[in-house]
Amino acid sequence: MAEAAHREFFAVRTVAEALAGFRPGRRTGTEAVALDEAHGRVPAAPIHALQALPGFERSTVDGYAVRAADTYGASEALPSYLDVVGEVRMGRPARAAVSPGGAVAIPTGAVVPPGADAVVMIEHTQAATSGMIEVLRPVAPGDGVVGADDDAAAGAELVPAGRALRAQDLGMLAAAGVTSVRVHIRPRVAILSSGDEVVAPETTELAPGQVRDANAVALAALVRDAGGEPDRRGIVGDDRDALRAALRDAVAVGDVVLVSAGSSVGARDETAAAVAELGPPGIWAHGIALRPGKPTLLADSGGVPVIGLPGNPRSALVVFGLIAAPVVRLVGGVTRPVPEPSVRARLARDVPSAGGRLDVVQVALDDGVATPLFGSSALLSVLTAADGYLVVPEEATGLDGGTEVDVTVYR
Amino acid sequence: MAEAAHREFFAVRTVAEALAGFRPGRRTGTEAVALDEAHGRVPAAPIHALQALPGFERSTVDGYAVRAADTYGASEALPSYLDVVGEVRMGRPARAAVSPGGAVAIPTGAVVPPGADAVVMIEHTQAATSGMIEVLRPVAPGDGVVGADDDAAAGAELVPAGRALRAQDLGMLAAAGVTSVRVHIRPRVAILSSGDEVVAPETTELAPGQVRDANAVALAALVRDAGGEPDRRGIVGDDRDALRAALRDAVAVGDVVLVSAGSSVGARDETAAAVAELGPPGIWAHGIALRPGKPTLLADSGGVPVIGLPGNPRSALVVFGLIAAPVVRLVGGVTRPVPEPSVRARLARDVPSAGGRLDVVQVALDDGVATPLFGSSALLSVLTAADGYLVVPEEATGLDGGTEVDVTVYR
Repeated sequence: MAEAAHREFFAVRTVAEALAGFRPGRRTGTEAVALDEAHGRVPAAPIHALQALPGFERSTVDGYAVRAADTYGASEALPSYLDVVGEVRMGRPARAAVSPGGAVAIPTGAVVPPGADAVVMIEHTQAATSGMIEVLRPVAPGDGVVGADDDAAAGAELVPAGRALRAQDLGMLAAAGVTSVRVHIRPRVAILSSGDEVVAPETTELAPGQVRDANAVALAALVRDAGGEPDRRGIVGDDRDALRAALRDAVAVGDVVLVSAGSSVGARDETAAAVAELGPPGIWAHGIALRPGKPTLLADSGGVPVIGLPGNPRSALVVFGLIAAPVVRLVGGVTRPVPEPSVRARLARDVPSAGGRLDVVQVALDDGVATPLFGSSALLSVLTAADGYLVVPEEATGLDGGTEVDVTVYR
Repeated sequence: MAEAAHREFFAVRTVAEALAGFRPGRRTGTEAVALDEAHGRVPAAPIHALQALPGFERSTVDGYAVRAADTYGASEALPSYLDVVGEVRMGRPARAAVSPGGAVAIPTGAVVPPGADAVVMIEHTQAATSGMIEVLRPVAPGDGVVGADDDAAAGAELVPAGRALRAQDLGMLAAAGVTSVRVHIRPRVAILSSGDEVVAPETTELAPGQVRDANAVALAALVRDAGGEPDRRGIVGDDRDALRAALRDAVAVGDVVLVSAGSSVGARDETAAAVAELGPPGIWAHGIALRPGKPTLLADSGGVPVIGLPGNPRSALVVFGLIAAPVVRLVGGVTRPVPEPSVRARLARDVPSAGGRLDVVQVALDDGVATPLFGSSALLSVLTAADGYLVVPEEATGLDGGTEVDVTVYR
């Protein structure tokens, strides 16, 4: 046990240290994808507008294009009278120009005709004698109009590099006529499960002592959420040679490697030894000050981040979310991560915690109240009963019932 | 204008009324999908365990399986001495039984042998003479053990109906040997864009007054996020016959229909008239007390919800998120929606708002400060510059700078 204990407590890092320090330089290459398929993908370089947008002076209201000066001083009592000299139709060029004393009828979104510098809302006009309108309120130049380059000047950045494309980004690119974007290839994330007791989920009848692999399918789902492409590489026994061979293959094909170690100290030691032999540069952290999730390995093998997750599914998923997901995103080119949103709730009762360690506490949410769910970290049912989790930071020693907490919601 | 104005202000609803009242009864059918493909899918019925889980009494620590009674009173000064009569191996049945005065070495996750009712952690033991250990602390029955049905009893519900499957749910199902799940078919969401000015994003050269369709691709991405399958049905002009035909086709194939109306009052009136003719039962809301997004139509045509979105992309996306996404989820069987998480921030400056109307304000987030982004709702750039949005509720008339707000983050 002495050596195991030594390894176990060697290079234990905090979560914050891991996030700040375990930052692989590896980035995936790029590929072109159609805009329809680009949601959540990460542009490798900023994308710029070829032309100005919307590309023409555009009305933002239904009304009359006018010269603003012609409306100065207009009121209900003393309206300005303007000649209606034409009409602009949607999607068509403006044919009639506006000269002093004139007005052109215009719908929202249409081209502001030459000579006009504002659009009066129809609600602020009324029909006068045939061919004339009364303007009941003055407008200033630019009122009711967006400029030809108000959405984007030619050459302006439409979307930045390093931020996953959101729905509105796709909309903006479509508006600009960009129908294909160069994005980072999804990082290939090799997923290995280890443990002599672990068998495939397809196993109908379990022999005594066997458990089905819960980690691989759950991790694959989380990898996809983080923008990666899971590569499930199966189950390997607690055998150092077999582990070493499987890890070497995984490092050869993966941009990131996840291995969930067997649950026993002995199995974890085998995994750690096999990971250490992958080198260089080798193991960066051997243990994280985190509960659950302490027996986490962080290593680098020739630029490929290798993350050893604890064997029990609850710890494995917690460590993936806190430590591995940001690594997958980074390798996939995300340099501008989105802040983690949460739901506010009141803690139903006290949560104990040891100082110096980050505690992840599963909670059920009901009507603004977060009830902590306790139970062995060997139990998956705690996680399926949970609506989310809260974090008790390193510096705290527990939280009092009634405290307002931020719950990260599972989805 | 009189008739248009009448229609415009007929049956205006609040967002809360729409969420509570516009609840289509339509649900999609079901299909079986492989567990690997089931993330985010919605089970049509609860899924139960066929057998107990983990299925055997399992050790949660590395140590020795014992009879707890044999350790009562044990201390460092006065340890209990036990005979080590065997060892359990991972993934194997326990061969040696524990009789009084005996102990069996056991790793985390292995089968607790017959006769034992607790496992002493190895850290609380030390080797004595050959074949014996000293137990330095007492254990109670059940310590270091999870029961054979602690994760799930045979027949217990593993995951509920009506909640999208999360990563841990997949893990639990894998552990239970469930490799195929019956889920709701993704709702087919027909997406129509209307407007004489609207052309396809592939259009290289725009004629004066034309704009490329930004809505369809952005809405398709949001539909997928809400669990739906987008069916992009192209662009239709502001022509009532063409709109009516396109809508009728959309209603025939869609579980939900989205139509983004042209931006002008005239175009919106054409859309409203075409939707009204679809009936019965017809239009449920003609306008929502929401900014941006007031000119929203909610209708029901023979059980198919038809949602008329405002033409400008910013309004269309806001209305989709607040009103349409919950409808898509509901039709897809989500009866237990997840609460919308957010990020807390301090408002950089005052936000004006009219009472009686829900205002959606786009904000940029920087280091806990939310800066409101103003500008015409005709501009997409406000939305691409935004990191999220905040809601000013109906009852408020603006928010003061410095207020703590909840920002829903775009992703």
